[in-house]
Amino acid sequence: MTAYDKLAALSIRLPDLAEPAAAFVPFVQTGNLVFLSGHIALRDGRPWTGRLGDGVTTDEGKRAAHAVAIDLLATLHAATGDLDRIRRIVKLLVLVHSAPTFAEQHLVANGASELLGAVLGAAASHARSAIGVAQLPFGVCVEIELIAEIAPG
Amino acid sequence: MTAYDKLAALSIRLPDLAEPAAAFVPFVQTGNLVFLSGHIALRDGRPWTGRLGDGVTTDEGKRAAHAVAIDLLATLHAATGDLDRIRRIVKLLVLVHSAPTFAEQHLVANGASELLGAVLGAAASHARSAIGVAQLPFGVCVEIELIAEIAPG
Amino acid sequence: MTAYDKLAALSIRLPDLAEPAAAFVPFVQTGNLVFLSGHIALRDGRPWTGRLGDGVTTDEGKRAAHAVAIDLLATLHAATGDLDRIRRIVKLLVLVHSAPTFAEQHLVANGASELLGAVLGAAASHARSAIGVAQLPFGVCVEIELIAEIAPG
Repeated sequence: MTAYDKLAALSIRLPDLAEPAAAFVPFVQTGNLVFLSGHIALRDGRPWTGRLGDGVTTDEGKRAAHAVAIDLLATLHAATGDLDRIRRIVKLLVLVHSAPTFAEQHLVANGASELLGAVLGAAASHARSAIGVAQLPFGVCVEIELIAEIAPG
Repeated sequence: MTAYDKLAALSIRLPDLAEPAAAFVPFVQTGNLVFLSGHIALRDGRPWTGRLGDGVTTDEGKRAAHAVAIDLLATLHAATGDLDRIRRIVKLLVLVHSAPTFAEQHLVANGASELLGAVLGAAASHARSAIGVAQLPFGVCVEIELIAEIAPG
Repeated sequence: MTAYDKLAALSIRLPDLAEPAAAFVPFVQTGNLVFLSGHIALRDGRPWTGRLGDGVTTDEGKRAAHAVAIDLLATLHAATGDLDRIRRIVKLLVLVHSAPTFAEQHLVANGASELLGAVLGAAASHARSAIGVAQLPFGVCVEIELIAEIAPG
């Protein structure tokens, strides 16, 4: 099964790549590495706002991280032309908008890590940091950046 | 026009590279990649302190990010010997000292992204994450780390 | 003296590598670079909790960072098979769980940077960012991620 078969089995449709903002781009490839910009959580195309531990539950945060991972896959598709060219997801940096009392950033991050595993299999086995931050652009609850290694073109 | 011509046209003089602290260094090159340490915002050579959304405006934050980008360029000059050897700014991590209510980290970050674009042209087109953090060393308002790809020596 | 001799001289015994969690792994190698997951501070095998500037002193934070650096070395040992294959510690990202008033993240980070220097010598000379975050997984006081370059196998 290809990564696309697995996405179809999960009933996930990759969105079109968001228009790059003027000042930066969604990804940069250097050698075999692709660095993705921080992707913010969106719901129905709008910022998925809120703070974990203050109205947003761990489970909702995990679903937001799952949504971000879909957008990261869409960007990886745009970057590679073929998700099955991904040799390895190297690292995630998972930023969780957190109240001072919220300490389950790692559980929120699993929402992204698990989807990547479901779609990319062993190639998804990645290093990761999950941290609680004071705020994120547009007040979103989760933002994730990603580094991947791809097969030479 | 070289990067130096563009700096001159912008009336920007690169500072001397700050003395490395004992425990770490301003940059490390590995292969064709140069990893720069987080550079904190300085004003008149002293920490540019303050918190966005709590006395520091988005516009002031953007100017602080612009100032950090000048220092990053100075470090890149020291790292490369010639800014025009930079093939690509790969990624910025823009850390904005933020009150819980401040959600315009992306606008602050543009202060750095736009200067890099003005000086380095297409090579400045980078991936980026902007996040709001609880505090930064010396209480500064902005800190930025950067990865660049340079042409083989 | 090898890195292991230096560890012995410092009376530091590297712990066994923690079992990888299901959703991610402690490190990923890509080319000559090894990316380590964020390692959280542990004391007596349990999360070293607390917030700098709010019950946890700078000196305690520095000791926590020193403890994390030991665990990072254990992971580097697992990744390389021989710490002396490390050509360079490329970069640390030091995340310090901080009260809004605490601005000595750089001093906390020195606890890790200095140990790496003591064990790895010139190869430990790294780029670094130190930032103050709102929270960390399990409420720990310090988390550190690391990138290293290793000699070809």
